[in-house]
Amino acid sequence: MNEIAANVLKGEPRSIARLISYAENGDVKASKAMKEIHFSTGKAHVVGITGVMGGGKSTLICEITREFRKKGKKVGIIAIDPTSPFSGGALLGDRVRMMELTMDKGVFIRSMGTRGMLGGLTSAVYDVVEILDASGKDIILIETVGVGQAEVDVIKIADTTLVVLVPGLGDSIQAIKAGVMEIADIFIINKADKSGVDQTVAEVESLVDLECSNKERRTPVIKTIAKENNGITEVINRIEEHKKYLKISKEFDIKRKKRYEAELVEIIRKRLMNFIFDESKFKDGIELLIDQIYNKEIDPYSAADKILGKILK
Amino acid sequence: MNEIAANVLKGEPRSIARLISYAENGDVKASKAMKEIHFSTGKAHVVGITGVMGGGKSTLICEITREFRKKGKKVGIIAIDPTSPFSGGALLGDRVRMMELTMDKGVFIRSMGTRGMLGGLTSAVYDVVEILDASGKDIILIETVGVGQAEVDVIKIADTTLVVLVPGLGDSIQAIKAGVMEIADIFIINKADKSGVDQTVAEVESLVDLECSNKERRTPVIKTIAKENNGITEVINRIEEHKKYLKISKEFDIKRKKRYEAELVEIIRKRLMNFIFDESKFKDGIELLIDQIYNKEIDPYSAADKILGKILK
Repeated sequence: MNEIAANVLKGEPRSIARLISYAENGDVKASKAMKEIHFSTGKAHVVGITGVMGGGKSTLICEITREFRKKGKKVGIIAIDPTSPFSGGALLGDRVRMMELTMDKGVFIRSMGTRGMLGGLTSAVYDVVEILDASGKDIILIETVGVGQAEVDVIKIADTTLVVLVPGLGDSIQAIKAGVMEIADIFIINKADKSGVDQTVAEVESLVDLECSNKERRTPVIKTIAKENNGITEVINRIEEHKKYLKISKEFDIKRKKRYEAELVEIIRKRLMNFIFDESKFKDGIELLIDQIYNKEIDPYSAADKILGKILK
Repeated sequence: MNEIAANVLKGEPRSIARLISYAENGDVKASKAMKEIHFSTGKAHVVGITGVMGGGKSTLICEITREFRKKGKKVGIIAIDPTSPFSGGALLGDRVRMMELTMDKGVFIRSMGTRGMLGGLTSAVYDVVEILDASGKDIILIETVGVGQAEVDVIKIADTTLVVLVPGLGDSIQAIKAGVMEIADIFIINKADKSGVDQTVAEVESLVDLECSNKERRTPVIKTIAKENNGITEVINRIEEHKKYLKISKEFDIKRKKRYEAELVEIIRKRLMNFIFDESKFKDGIELLIDQIYNKEIDPYSAADKILGKILK
């Protein structure tokens, strides 16, 4: 077995970090190890946490992690920060609060930035989930900000999705309605010590009423004050309840197959795009075509036909 | 010439709407017309408007549109709402305010939702920009929410990008710093009647100082109260000043070529993904591979190799 793969399976943090970096950079060393570790994956429960900026998601993640640690579970945290898409790096606002967790050997934290045009965000995230899973983490928490397409893609990876809202959202509840109702497995109204909490809970509950009237499971709405560790036990219980529900209802199989489908799509997309746009044998031709499009000598669709004609059987 | 293409070139609203729908749905009728209209594009100035949710972007767009209309310019508006990614449709909070503009024949408004896994958001947006450009619009305004990857992709289309902030952002200015500094051509501090406006302006100005110290052009920071039409003339002047700057500095060519490159990448990505995942000759094989991945009989990377081996020359 590949050395780095073997060390990842042992849970060795430096090898985990290195393999993640290889995966992020599209290094050939990654796919070799990724192939081997896949056969040791599938055990971790993946929890996606999304919601409004300033909703206290990072604090919530810290507290959820602490709670799972008390139960002896190993936790992987993937913090995705789309606010620094160009730097390739990532800012993590609550890094200080996370400091404490980084001392804990049962916790692995990875902060990811988004990548450029061809790289995409999600391909590396699938890899990171597989790596953390293979390394023996019981729970993988993925934090995303906002509800853009990239974030929605990430949510496809999760077995359980928490949508975090705060009191006093007002109009925006209507606005986010269509998007979040379908992805939320658990609603969390964080900062429940703020005024307007009861109205926000009532609004979300009424949306849940509409959405879940003919469903087996009603999406729970939980009030939390994460910074005071208030309501966190309830969140943990609900995650575990949802996990059981997935298994009983066979939704688990469906979700996991969807994740693998999305992962496969992403690997293929990335390979093809690298093949077409990064390989030197096409590069000159593509630059010429772009000049021709700009000069109105050819249209973009016909240019695409030309390139595809060269690569497809 | 294709009938729908000919009518789009005449600026006929129903044909514009129909061709956009074809493009969104990946209808074959789209690419035929798209090929023809490309040769009548390149004249419209594309303005991207992004920034925090609740920043008043829609109001701002209404006012900017009115101002351009006073100058006799035709305006196309593309409102992208990522909060309803699953519905395929889009909610537009300020639809009522936009009602008035819809009566104006010199304005075309299109609200778009994001699409599913294979469709992506941006492919249709490139098409819509080309269609509106070909239809004779002088200005195309693209509204996006947030700073996720999909939104960043959209910004690549714009010649001029407005980043809209509001007073009292506090910490989040630091957080968004890395992301927005590189995309902002003009900063707008909207809702300038709110408290804390001077501090926010000062913070943004100091970021601009850092960023632009060795650049030809300093990113302007403009205060507006969009709902009172306060500061809008200044915004228009700055957009026109930036347009001139782009031409003089040759940045215009670079930006446009980047747009065409992104469009080409997107067309190719879409074609390939449809070819692999929607064509029936591969479908069964892919479903089988996903089952095998789930059952740990194969890993995702080797599965991708198998599929690529079948389609690539």
